[in-house]
Amino acid sequence: MTLDQLNRASPEAFVAAIGEAFERAPWVAQAAARKRPFRTVADLHDAMMQAVRQAPPARRLAFIAGHPELGSRVRRADLTGHSQHEQGSLGLDRLSAEEFERFARLNAAYRDKFGFPFIICVRRHTRDSILRQFERRLGNDAESERARALDEIAWITRLRIANLVEGPGKPSTSGRLTSHVLDLVAGGPAQGVHLSLYEIGTSARGLLCEAVTDAAGRTDPPLIAEAPLRIGTYELAFRVGAYFAHRQPPAATATGFLDVVPVRFSIAEPEAHYHVPLLVTPWSYTTYRGS
Amino acid sequence: MTLDQLNRASPEAFVAAIGEAFERAPWVAQAAARKRPFRTVADLHDAMMQAVRQAPPARRLAFIAGHPELGSRVRRADLTGHSQHEQGSLGLDRLSAEEFERFARLNAAYRDKFGFPFIICVRRHTRDSILRQFERRLGNDAESERARALDEIAWITRLRIANLVEGPGKPSTSGRLTSHVLDLVAGGPAQGVHLSLYEIGTSARGLLCEAVTDAAGRTDPPLIAEAPLRIGTYELAFRVGAYFAHRQPPAATATGFLDVVPVRFSIAEPEAHYHVPLLVTPWSYTTYRGS
Amino acid sequence: MTLDQLNRASPEAFVAAIGEAFERAPWVAQAAARKRPFRTVADLHDAMMQAVRQAPPARRLAFIAGHPELGSRVRRADLTGHSQHEQGSLGLDRLSAEEFERFARLNAAYRDKFGFPFIICVRRHTRDSILRQFERRLGNDAESERARALDEIAWITRLRIANLVEGPGKPSTSGRLTSHVLDLVAGGPAQGVHLSLYEIGTSARGLLCEAVTDAAGRTDPPLIAEAPLRIGTYELAFRVGAYFAHRQPPAATATGFLDVVPVRFSIAEPEAHYHVPLLVTPWSYTTYRGS
Amino acid sequence: MTLDQLNRASPEAFVAAIGEAFERAPWVAQAAARKRPFRTVADLHDAMMQAVRQAPPARRLAFIAGHPELGSRVRRADLTGHSQHEQGSLGLDRLSAEEFERFARLNAAYRDKFGFPFIICVRRHTRDSILRQFERRLGNDAESERARALDEIAWITRLRIANLVEGPGKPSTSGRLTSHVLDLVAGGPAQGVHLSLYEIGTSARGLLCEAVTDAAGRTDPPLIAEAPLRIGTYELAFRVGAYFAHRQPPAATATGFLDVVPVRFSIAEPEAHYHVPLLVTPWSYTTYRGS
Repeated sequence: MTLDQLNRASPEAFVAAIGEAFERAPWVAQAAARKRPFRTVADLHDAMMQAVRQAPPARRLAFIAGHPELGSRVRRADLTGHSQHEQGSLGLDRLSAEEFERFARLNAAYRDKFGFPFIICVRRHTRDSILRQFERRLGNDAESERARALDEIAWITRLRIANLVEGPGKPSTSGRLTSHVLDLVAGGPAQGVHLSLYEIGTSARGLLCEAVTDAAGRTDPPLIAEAPLRIGTYELAFRVGAYFAHRQPPAATATGFLDVVPVRFSIAEPEAHYHVPLLVTPWSYTTYRGS
Repeated sequence: MTLDQLNRASPEAFVAAIGEAFERAPWVAQAAARKRPFRTVADLHDAMMQAVRQAPPARRLAFIAGHPELGSRVRRADLTGHSQHEQGSLGLDRLSAEEFERFARLNAAYRDKFGFPFIICVRRHTRDSILRQFERRLGNDAESERARALDEIAWITRLRIANLVEGPGKPSTSGRLTSHVLDLVAGGPAQGVHLSLYEIGTSARGLLCEAVTDAAGRTDPPLIAEAPLRIGTYELAFRVGAYFAHRQPPAATATGFLDVVPVRFSIAEPEAHYHVPLLVTPWSYTTYRGS
Repeated sequence: MTLDQLNRASPEAFVAAIGEAFERAPWVAQAAARKRPFRTVADLHDAMMQAVRQAPPARRLAFIAGHPELGSRVRRADLTGHSQHEQGSLGLDRLSAEEFERFARLNAAYRDKFGFPFIICVRRHTRDSILRQFERRLGNDAESERARALDEIAWITRLRIANLVEGPGKPSTSGRLTSHVLDLVAGGPAQGVHLSLYEIGTSARGLLCEAVTDAAGRTDPPLIAEAPLRIGTYELAFRVGAYFAHRQPPAATATGFLDVVPVRFSIAEPEAHYHVPLLVTPWSYTTYRGS
Repeated sequence: MTLDQLNRASPEAFVAAIGEAFERAPWVAQAAARKRPFRTVADLHDAMMQAVRQAPPARRLAFIAGHPELGSRVRRADLTGHSQHEQGSLGLDRLSAEEFERFARLNAAYRDKFGFPFIICVRRHTRDSILRQFERRLGNDAESERARALDEIAWITRLRIANLVEGPGKPSTSGRLTSHVLDLVAGGPAQGVHLSLYEIGTSARGLLCEAVTDAAGRTDPPLIAEAPLRIGTYELAFRVGAYFAHRQPPAATATGFLDVVPVRFSIAEPEAHYHVPLLVTPWSYTTYRGS
């Protein structure tokens, strides 16, 4: 549905179209309907969040408490370690026994302390960063956590509204991870370098994607795009040994030094652009957060 | 015993002192005793190897065949994968079931084809490079392998003679692995960086040692020294996130990018000096084979 | 005039419009007119050059000989060294006495040897590279120089045709020089770095332009664009000391190490993109030919 | 003379041996003679400076005022710019007319304001840094300048005592400037790279020395050693184009990018070790303050 259509829809149609973006709380959309028309999709979302923030405390708290427990998406992995490696992102559906128990403990402790479930915008996090957030936030006081729950709801609903509504001024909900390999022996882009992207969890590593650099030394499409990056730790593995061995003449010798070059880094800003280039020879490399 | 003492010893004492460096072949030392005096320990070893190379073919072949099978030092690991990680070098005493079988197959095939056991200077190799050599050398013809067996015996006995005899001109049997961390934010050596050295095998990784950089940004003693480096693949993990977080003022921010920096490289020359420095900021690093 | 208009023009109008791109040789355009229509501007230029290359040898030689002597654009500089520095490119209109004499000698020697003037596409060269070409080409034999003169005429007329004719498939006649400064202490683009671009000649240096990096760490517009780069040697001077001193908190200390960072490089391909980035801290930098 | 001899000498012999290290002030040595014996040469110098600092104010001021004017070593250069380039360090004996006048003005203004001459340890400074110090210190108040004059006298006399007296614990009066070139294409030290070291003054540049890297990629001896480094700006020019062109096979191509690589840096600590390495390919380099 377009923003323009929403601006001109009946209040009932408006609520029907986007009301469910806010869990079990059609009153949020009803309040926003009265603020129409909206110039941008971001304005629409802001108005809905404002309705939440300005609701009477009891209603706001009931709204927060009405969110499903994170646990509903969590289950203990019966997958072997090996198949995990094949299946990419280390999601909440593939917890080890130890993590599963840790999770259940945290869920119970959080609800005990605050009286509402732990809310977090899962799509902006890896499993490890969710667990880290969980433990950190358990130490907060009630007021901070009520505020924090609303902030997370804002992230969650921003993604939902951006999915539901077409129109100008959509809020940016996507980050981007790109790389670029320069061959400093040849003095230009390194074409044909295989690279693998892994998520690095405390208990496992998951292969997210594989790619080969093009004539510009880049991957097309980007390694991650059109979605929030997940806060967490990653590793890019560049197969530079194979690349240099296949050059004519080969740039690597019998006494090869570099083969697979791992570059490990953390992502902290899901909506940002992370550019991680590699300037490489058979004997050296430089990497950095580029722009 | 000193070279000087050996030069002046009776032939019997000479053979008793160093004869066993060549397995079950006292005639090697007997021949060398007649070439005395030697100016350097290297000359002594050269004379012994010359005695082997100039021996009648049948005696030389019997000498080669008299070497113990590599298998005698091999056994299947009953260790869990986890405890392997704790125990350093991935030696031949800790083969996985799969590797153990591969090894047994190779041993049998080699003896079948050449009539003598596979000889390799184990102390210059990791488990992976031994297996790789094994498979590569199985493809050779008999003449090449007889020559290659002598070359390996030369490496083995060079180490033994260097251990047994003190004196001038000892052959160089040691390599050296060193590192150096420079903090490019502060413009000087990075003191207090924890680093871990791993051997990277096909089936496992083994922690070889841990160290902390000193005021010169180096590790003292070197990461490896006073022994041949083992041909294989290694990873140095530098904990740069912790280093920058503890600086006053902290150089890393809430949005940390680098935490543990892994640098993976191969060693091909056991007697060489490998210097693997890291020039680092919280957002970038350069590494290379230094000198 | 557009390619479309040229395709439909009378032969006379066609020749009137673009004939003078080839010096005193309307017969070139007349021949090309008969090959119409052209799909691209590059095809048009190719057809004109083909007319030259297929002309009878005497006519082709007369055409070459009809070009003006390079000397007509050369004069001895009466400018002081200082004002040269202010005035950018070290053009042929600002030769030192020594260079002026060298030039006159070369012109005479060339005409003596080959019977036609030295032809070079001046807009693709610096003064130094013209002199170097002059000396090198004087050593050629006559046949090579006749071929080389035609190649240079192709470069010259390509630029003229690209200026005269609008339409699809214009040949690429422009190179591009860009830079990019990354602050590896802050982990992002360095905004506000002053940089100066110099042409480095044997006898002098000329300031070509100055710029300040924008929020992306780049210069907008590029340092050079929309014209061929001139073959020669250049220096980019980045004022990184001032940049770091003005950061909050200042990243450079009383014991500053880097102030102005000069990066000197040569350009050999006038139609290429040269990207010369700087990855910099107060104590280090990396530069390379990027892409 | 050795420290041991000084410790046992008569007071008269002691003063005769080292008294003149402090200009026209034998009382300094007389006071120090009474503090004997000294364990280290540094202790001896400390005792002499303490005698100065504890002298009655009038005597201390007379001592300061008794120093010769810097101007006595200054004269206007009649050398052409060209010959300056040939003659190394841009000393005070080769001032341009403009600098000479600036100097005379500063000398007069300083004496007018403070009543004693401007004192600076010339051997720790370049011409430019002396002029910069001169102007900065003219803005100080009298008390600061009296203190500063003593600090400079301490540097001056430290050098003199270190020259006059042999023995343990000599104060460190020498800095060191070294370089190291690594060829990242070959993966080892770059042997045979020509490099030139220049002092970069505001009005001129002076060639200090030339060197060629040895098999370790270093210069032996260091570029500067066994003397204080002079505070100022320097440029190291590495001829990497020639180096790569002479490799077999040549690593640089017809479209060379780097030829002479200039690295410009400032020295602020005369007694420190400045290590300025170059990690280089035909298309890139990294430089930094090493250690």
